[in-house]
Amino acid sequence: MHNTEIRIRGYHLDLFGHVNNARYLEFLEEARWAIFDDKLNLEDLARGGFAFTVVNININYRHPAFLHDTLCIESRLSKVGSRSAVIRQTVINKKSAVPIADADVTFVMLDAKSQKAALLEGRLKETLLQTIGPESSLETG
Amino acid sequence: MHNTEIRIRGYHLDLFGHVNNARYLEFLEEARWAIFDDKLNLEDLARGGFAFTVVNININYRHPAFLHDTLCIESRLSKVGSRSAVIRQTVINKKSAVPIADADVTFVMLDAKSQKAALLEGRLKETLLQTIGPESSLETG
Amino acid sequence: MHNTEIRIRGYHLDLFGHVNNARYLEFLEEARWAIFDDKLNLEDLARGGFAFTVVNININYRHPAFLHDTLCIESRLSKVGSRSAVIRQTVINKKSAVPIADADVTFVMLDAKSQKAALLEGRLKETLLQTIGPESSLETG
Amino acid sequence: MHNTEIRIRGYHLDLFGHVNNARYLEFLEEARWAIFDDKLNLEDLARGGFAFTVVNININYRHPAFLHDTLCIESRLSKVGSRSAVIRQTVINKKSAVPIADADVTFVMLDAKSQKAALLEGRLKETLLQTIGPESSLETG
Repeated sequence: MHNTEIRIRGYHLDLFGHVNNARYLEFLEEARWAIFDDKLNLEDLARGGFAFTVVNININYRHPAFLHDTLCIESRLSKVGSRSAVIRQTVINKKSAVPIADADVTFVMLDAKSQKAALLEGRLKETLLQTIGPESSLETG
Repeated sequence: MHNTEIRIRGYHLDLFGHVNNARYLEFLEEARWAIFDDKLNLEDLARGGFAFTVVNININYRHPAFLHDTLCIESRLSKVGSRSAVIRQTVINKKSAVPIADADVTFVMLDAKSQKAALLEGRLKETLLQTIGPESSLETG
Repeated sequence: MHNTEIRIRGYHLDLFGHVNNARYLEFLEEARWAIFDDKLNLEDLARGGFAFTVVNININYRHPAFLHDTLCIESRLSKVGSRSAVIRQTVINKKSAVPIADADVTFVMLDAKSQKAALLEGRLKETLLQTIGPESSLETG
Repeated sequence: MHNTEIRIRGYHLDLFGHVNNARYLEFLEEARWAIFDDKLNLEDLARGGFAFTVVNININYRHPAFLHDTLCIESRLSKVGSRSAVIRQTVINKKSAVPIADADVTFVMLDAKSQKAALLEGRLKETLLQTIGPESSLETG
């Protein structure tokens, strides 16, 4: 599990004073990069010929966020399949704990040679689990 | 059904020469605004106290898009439920017809007074169908 | 001289209903890319070992732009120096002709080998003039 | 004087692995908001009928920034004129101290009633100086 905080600025907001849909994906990406900053093993693997590639994002927008709000983004590996895995990211308002958004981000480790999703087994799977898992709630399917 | 074209520029691309995940949501939003430009009824309704509010986006990233590619975005109302509806948006490479991304965008018409999702019936439902439907494939659930 | 039109969408706007400062630089970049789309010689040169590199942007924000405004961006080469040149870009409201913003964008043609600004002479200068000039008002300094 | 740090992520970078021109303006704006976060007097004034409004940005791009670089942004009030003032913002690479970009951001305090730039005198001027000044190098013109 990993936590990132983001403070809402004027340039994050749209016409209605809300954070724009697209901007949330940048916040989620910021949180994922922060994980790789802290625990670099995944990136090492990337250098070994695997590219972290997002194939699906399913995001719920729960409540709007406003100027000066501080958002907390919690990220954890929620599922490891045979060739894809899911990071669950939850965004809440730090002060009020109101849920702002939550997303399941499905990714594969693209094998640079074959241009196909690599099998998530052995050292690759271990590294994923060490980096953003394991979680007691982890499903392995 | 509605079509929008977007040409990929240098500033759309990330480090790997691909269009960034968050930028695709801006492309999809551009396509949705273009619908409202052409067929203004929905916006009239918004002025009448209803706010078009996205509550979920489920997007698949199929193939990367590159510099100078022209993307075609097709948008159509794919489902009208009792209080929410879905716009299906499909992004393909104009030249090669390679699928780039597709998304289901679920929205509600937020009633400004009650701050709840309005019932999609009567004139509200008709306007939605006139603006981005009807489609032969339309499911009503 | 080259003209590009951009229509203001909700996601372009900030909290105050204005187009954000940073977003204008994307609009200006869009207009510059559109030049290269129409007249490809400059890009050919880029392939020949020269990279179009912006070294300064001096932008005046004159009046705000609002939702649904259509902006016209006029771009022209305004000065060709020995190692740098300037594109002047003017943004006006299409309907009212109100000036929105104007910018001088100074660029060099970076020589990939030496990593220094190339002399703008001979074929390089000709190509620049053919692509976004010549203008009667062109200063050569 | 005020310092902000920003870490370069993949989504900040363009095709050439460089931070895009427009993104730098977001970094500068982030740094300016951080000032208002720490020292809120300016915002109080804004509530009193004055809107902080940027009228010109003159930015030099010195050297490219790359993935994982940490940038330091130093912001200080460099000039207070009768109706406008200038914040000088300098971006350097934290590790190498290589200059990345520097900008003069000229702003006015727009009077909400008259829609004109307010005179920067009395309490308004004091608040500006207290918030992001005074600097020994401050010019008053």
